Amino acid sequence: MENNNENKISYDEFKKVEVTVGKILSAEKIPDTDKLLKLSVDFAEGAPRQIVSGISAYFPDPAVLVGKKAMFVTNLAPRMIKDFESNGMLFAVGGGDIPFSLLEPASDVPEGTKAV
Amino acid sequence: MENNNENKISYDEFKKVEVTVGKILSAEKIPDTDKLLKLSVDFAEGAPRQIVSGISAYFPDPAVLVGKKAMFVTNLAPRMIKDFESNGMLFAVGGGDIPFSLLEPASDVPEGTKAV
Repeated sequence: MENNNENKISYDEFKKVEVTVGKILSAEKIPDTDKLLKLSVDFAEGAPRQIVSGISAYFPDPAVLVGKKAMFVTNLAPRMIKDFESNGMLFAVGGGDIPFSLLEPASDVPEGTKAV
Repeated sequence: MENNNENKISYDEFKKVEVTVGKILSAEKIPDTDKLLKLSVDFAEGAPRQIVSGISAYFPDPAVLVGKKAMFVTNLAPRMIKDFESNGMLFAVGGGDIPFSLLEPASDVPEGTKAV
């Protein structure tokens, strides 16, 4: 089939985006918000990063996230979300009318590994 | 930890990249090449796309890929690889000295779903 997407990008544009395997060390709901979880994520950088993500609805018990490896965009500028700095963004699929899913690599891929 | 990556991108730059769940319909080694597999991948677009990927070494029996869902970059311009047009690119992790892994969402995420 033809690729008719009008928003084509170059390979160089794609390569600008850094997506990295992170291991979730902790996950807790941010009080007084509907959707936000505060995650601590290890990317084998020496210290974990704090990442805020609007996925609370998919994980009523955030503790199930602890220990999981998932994919994160790791070269966005840090930004403040509800008074918490987020230093990266969860990269996942679905939500809304379709199931939500983390992108979990095989467990033997170490945190810090970049997507290619 | 501080995000010291020097190659920061904006959210808009990130959003340019379209990464989509594809279901692999067929996978075969391209003769006379060391690394190339030719995949047929369904993105719920009406007809599957042909995608060429250098992952033969990780899948000595390409048939194991058939039926799997994985992530693909779907808005790159088509390009020719060894006389075969590739209309997308596998988006995975690892390789080289570390394990290679597809990014397989939970099986109930339909093909065609975009990463967010």
